[in-house]
Amino acid sequence: MLHSTLTLMGVTWEESVTYSINAVYLLFSAYLVFVMQIGFAMICAGSVRAKNAMNIMLTNVVDAVVGSISFYLFGFAFAYGTSNPFIGSHLFALAHIPNATYDYAFFLYQWAFAIAVTGITSGSIAERTQFSAYLVFSFFLSGFVYPVVVHWVWSSSGWLSPSSTPLMLGSGAIDFAGSGVVHLVGAVAGLWGSIIEGPRAGRFDALGRPVPLRGHSATLVVLGTFLLWFGWFGFNPGSFDKILVAYPGTSDQGNWTSVGRTAVTTILAGSTAGIVTLFGRRLLVGHWDAMDVCNGLLGGFVSITSGCSVVEPWAAIICGFVSAWVLIGLNIVALKLNYDDPLEAAQLHGGCGTWGLLFTGLFAKEEFVIQVYNSGEIGVTRPYGLLLGGGWGLIGAQVIEILTIFGWVSVTMGPIFYALHKLELLRIPVNEEVTGLDISCHGGYAYAQENYHLRLYGDYIS
Amino acid sequence: MLHSTLTLMGVTWEESVTYSINAVYLLFSAYLVFVMQIGFAMICAGSVRAKNAMNIMLTNVVDAVVGSISFYLFGFAFAYGTSNPFIGSHLFALAHIPNATYDYAFFLYQWAFAIAVTGITSGSIAERTQFSAYLVFSFFLSGFVYPVVVHWVWSSSGWLSPSSTPLMLGSGAIDFAGSGVVHLVGAVAGLWGSIIEGPRAGRFDALGRPVPLRGHSATLVVLGTFLLWFGWFGFNPGSFDKILVAYPGTSDQGNWTSVGRTAVTTILAGSTAGIVTLFGRRLLVGHWDAMDVCNGLLGGFVSITSGCSVVEPWAAIICGFVSAWVLIGLNIVALKLNYDDPLEAAQLHGGCGTWGLLFTGLFAKEEFVIQVYNSGEIGVTRPYGLLLGGGWGLIGAQVIEILTIFGWVSVTMGPIFYALHKLELLRIPVNEEVTGLDISCHGGYAYAQENYHLRLYGDYIS
Amino acid sequence: MLHSTLTLMGVTWEESVTYSINAVYLLFSAYLVFVMQIGFAMICAGSVRAKNAMNIMLTNVVDAVVGSISFYLFGFAFAYGTSNPFIGSHLFALAHIPNATYDYAFFLYQWAFAIAVTGITSGSIAERTQFSAYLVFSFFLSGFVYPVVVHWVWSSSGWLSPSSTPLMLGSGAIDFAGSGVVHLVGAVAGLWGSIIEGPRAGRFDALGRPVPLRGHSATLVVLGTFLLWFGWFGFNPGSFDKILVAYPGTSDQGNWTSVGRTAVTTILAGSTAGIVTLFGRRLLVGHWDAMDVCNGLLGGFVSITSGCSVVEPWAAIICGFVSAWVLIGLNIVALKLNYDDPLEAAQLHGGCGTWGLLFTGLFAKEEFVIQVYNSGEIGVTRPYGLLLGGGWGLIGAQVIEILTIFGWVSVTMGPIFYALHKLELLRIPVNEEVTGLDISCHGGYAYAQENYHLRLYGDYIS
Repeated sequence: MLHSTLTLMGVTWEESVTYSINAVYLLFSAYLVFVMQIGFAMICAGSVRAKNAMNIMLTNVVDAVVGSISFYLFGFAFAYGTSNPFIGSHLFALAHIPNATYDYAFFLYQWAFAIAVTGITSGSIAERTQFSAYLVFSFFLSGFVYPVVVHWVWSSSGWLSPSSTPLMLGSGAIDFAGSGVVHLVGAVAGLWGSIIEGPRAGRFDALGRPVPLRGHSATLVVLGTFLLWFGWFGFNPGSFDKILVAYPGTSDQGNWTSVGRTAVTTILAGSTAGIVTLFGRRLLVGHWDAMDVCNGLLGGFVSITSGCSVVEPWAAIICGFVSAWVLIGLNIVALKLNYDDPLEAAQLHGGCGTWGLLFTGLFAKEEFVIQVYNSGEIGVTRPYGLLLGGGWGLIGAQVIEILTIFGWVSVTMGPIFYALHKLELLRIPVNEEVTGLDISCHGGYAYAQENYHLRLYGDYIS
Repeated sequence: MLHSTLTLMGVTWEESVTYSINAVYLLFSAYLVFVMQIGFAMICAGSVRAKNAMNIMLTNVVDAVVGSISFYLFGFAFAYGTSNPFIGSHLFALAHIPNATYDYAFFLYQWAFAIAVTGITSGSIAERTQFSAYLVFSFFLSGFVYPVVVHWVWSSSGWLSPSSTPLMLGSGAIDFAGSGVVHLVGAVAGLWGSIIEGPRAGRFDALGRPVPLRGHSATLVVLGTFLLWFGWFGFNPGSFDKILVAYPGTSDQGNWTSVGRTAVTTILAGSTAGIVTLFGRRLLVGHWDAMDVCNGLLGGFVSITSGCSVVEPWAAIICGFVSAWVLIGLNIVALKLNYDDPLEAAQLHGGCGTWGLLFTGLFAKEEFVIQVYNSGEIGVTRPYGLLLGGGWGLIGAQVIEILTIFGWVSVTMGPIFYALHKLELLRIPVNEEVTGLDISCHGGYAYAQENYHLRLYGDYIS
Repeated sequence: MLHSTLTLMGVTWEESVTYSINAVYLLFSAYLVFVMQIGFAMICAGSVRAKNAMNIMLTNVVDAVVGSISFYLFGFAFAYGTSNPFIGSHLFALAHIPNATYDYAFFLYQWAFAIAVTGITSGSIAERTQFSAYLVFSFFLSGFVYPVVVHWVWSSSGWLSPSSTPLMLGSGAIDFAGSGVVHLVGAVAGLWGSIIEGPRAGRFDALGRPVPLRGHSATLVVLGTFLLWFGWFGFNPGSFDKILVAYPGTSDQGNWTSVGRTAVTTILAGSTAGIVTLFGRRLLVGHWDAMDVCNGLLGGFVSITSGCSVVEPWAAIICGFVSAWVLIGLNIVALKLNYDDPLEAAQLHGGCGTWGLLFTGLFAKEEFVIQVYNSGEIGVTRPYGLLLGGGWGLIGAQVIEILTIFGWVSVTMGPIFYALHKLELLRIPVNEEVTGLDISCHGGYAYAQENYHLRLYGDYIS
């Protein structure tokens, strides 16, 4: 049974083992990241009113299917077709894949990230957006705006990448799994969409006071939150791409150690943020609110996503603690400004994502930075966290990433939303909004339980 | 810590590594395939009316538990107890497992497939079938009818297998993960069950015009669809059984490459089918329908399941495109013929499964066929896709598989359903059907929210 | 691409491969165990009335976040900071991790177990407990009571451990994945909580006859059950910690074989228990009940969790068969004693957990015990199952574990619940219980579908 694998030509047995282990690790991580799509769909569905549940779930499914095709055709090429520091220009439609650098598993992992971005944005503009507008912006966002940022920060030729030559400020930005590349990008897009559309009908009264528009199912929100947590185990620990990389100068450590530590920092940041939100909101609103804990938890995950691989577990607790207050604070600000974001997506993914990038610049540990970005090579030095004595190089690059993403997404997605708005293609008519998107645009409600309830009184209609 | 693994007797270290990597790959793939059981349960529950939700979920749970025992006792033996080209005759109750060919992980992977088959069939006969009839047919289907087809197509001694000697038409049928073996088998069984039972009460009016009987929860359908997608990453890429197999004549490729490519073709076919269904149905019915997209997506997955490992990504897009129209067309035909299948299971799994087998015969690439079925051995030639110049051997074998499955399942499951029908054990009485299966046969409704709603008006009943 | 991994200093390539394979196996197993948290949340939510759904889901989320911090700070240290046979005393806050014995992946796997324990207990006291009481007991249970039991039974210095020196009764207790350590611990805590609180208002009438208080969603219960099944593939087969361990004296076996067999015994025990419950309850109550099958299935999983790695598949069927009757019997007893446990958690996790420990003492196979606990070393002998001729050593140690857990959890958790009760911090006021916890303590109901239903009659309220 083993003979066929032991007698090799071309590929040595050692190489086969290495490729196989890394492929198993990366493929199953990609599958976990895909679960985040399920998590988003359930959170979004639960957070909107029942009359719009079908609509938002459809946008989540369409995200995945449209994103798959556009990322295959050109998104992956813009992101990883190395050529110049600004945009990739080959590998369209997976031409020349597999090659010496990229196998299909890598594409798959990146695909799972790409389809997540638009899910963030769709939360901000939920319950009032035309479906065709959704198709336009989501195609553009996942096919062009997001891949370009990936190219800058994650590809080996990107101008902000921590692996390129020369390194920006001698450091490059460290955004390991994408607090900025994924979450801030999606959030800034959603921020503009939501501002241009304005709040949902009835969200603020004539005096500008907020009126709660409760989501229709807390069960779905909790289910979705837990599924996102599960998926984050692919998102953060999976971002090493390879697990079989040993660190010279240690007796038993390698990427396998860092992958585990990354999972640990992820759960500690999320958990801390969840607890702080639980008690913080208890003080502010007077009851224990499950929805708050869910959002706090997710805010912690978003924050740690940038630095998860390069900080100590104790630092992750600081990350989560601050993240909770960032989210609580931004939600208060949003209400004051009459900004309506049904999923709190801009506050959560944007605010906590920004904090996460800064946090990395403050707390990244030199040893871990060298392990993650130079395979632990002996003799290398790199800038690291400002508060640990690592100088201004890293935190400077982090600030540049924040400003760049905010600027780039604003100048690309802002005009798109504005043009859709001017063409009256963005927001649905108010009567359809009041009636609900599902019955107006999708052929019926998500739930058909009326017969069941009527039947309780003995009156059955088939 | 490592000493015990480095000092081996009997098993060499290289063999240990190979076994371990392949076991991790196959076991976690099996776990993913199991997730499809959850997906089926949620889709089925959401697609029926609330009054029958408990019933259909019970059938899904019973599928899994009854299938586990029957597949352990004799299903696996019929399928893989190699002996003659027609049916296996040893390995009952896992006797002589593990052996040099099969370890427990392989059984587990096959088990996860076996329990999926009856889930397909139960969709076709939902909302009107007696629970005891369900027990009878599902035991027979998963314990005998399905394993025999597995033996023919997948075991190394099967008469249609692409790995046996001699090869049917010099080729054998290529049904890599089971468009035919799993999906068509389940669908043909469901087709006969549904025809013999007839449509649900009220599905067609006196003039034969269809009356929509909407499922009670689109949320569950979307959740289930996404869970099936997640599970399909185990179903298709997992079907290699081993990932540590290098291809001679390449510098860095092996099963790890093909496993990744299989995941890519799977998502491309499903996504294309989803998009085409979205727009196609928009043209036909005038609104954007999330349920259509879900079914289109699943149809694409069913189609690519046969050829996923042996076609190029661009071909997967063709596969998905055609698949969407196959499903749309068959649904129109079904309505005209007054055929009622609550889950569209026969159309989806049968129609798209058949197309998938033909597609493989048209588009399979020689290089990939040799890699997948001969470990990339140099000098081997095999028939491949007709449209790529690979001759009639493969497409001929594919047609034989289609006809064989249709015939075999018809002559076995048809009489069973007919006998149950004649004995008045198949369909529930019409008054129970109108009242709902849950209250009639399962002790109550799936949902107890009435108190909650009444309570809104201040009137509480404990 | 491979050069950096092939040119190593300090860590040999063989060691790197071993660490990587084992890390992939253990990390993904840990992620699966985490899914059990989702499963618990869904089962709990579905099993309570709609008015308490938010409350119980919040406790599940809080379990995870509070447990993460307390297990990081001191739970892991109490459990695995080896020092004396009774309690660990270093590794607080992961100090000195990674070290030669434990890497982060091991912590993560243990963490996923720790947060599961309180989920069991919270089921027993559902629908009537103050949230602050919940915070107190869950912190104490997951941070101290449970880790101490882990130290005794699973750490290499524990007095009951099958890996310590000397072995209790020459054997040590075999509780491979925790029928006792996890399930019985959680159940005994819940038993005391539920007894001290008393039954829910309206659960028994004035004559002590039970009144059904149906959960509000069978769909959620089925979803949760299946998710627990999925998670159990991490819980049981994952408990080997390492998969790359070969067995000397065999030609192709190692932990990879036992891991697969463990998955097989798990599904067979659960499935048998599910089927027996289906038919057994059919005889007793006269209908086919999906909720019974779900609980029966879970009872089978709980039972096999102790011996899953050391018994033959046929024995797992016996395990599941008895387990079903244990659960059916204890549920009858509970009703007679007017004991109210909304999730049947004490009966299921306590009763079936106890049976599982005894079952292991009766049916453990010597060969497998030596493989699992001595890496298959040649020449070793150990006590094994009494009914297979292995003597009284093992079954004696199993009985000691049962009694010890019952005693330890009773003397620690009993006083805590009693003190909370005396301080009027345990049970909510009866009017709040009747109104529901969600509106009383959590700011609103889990569902907001009223608008949707009213809207059906043309009357919309934003």
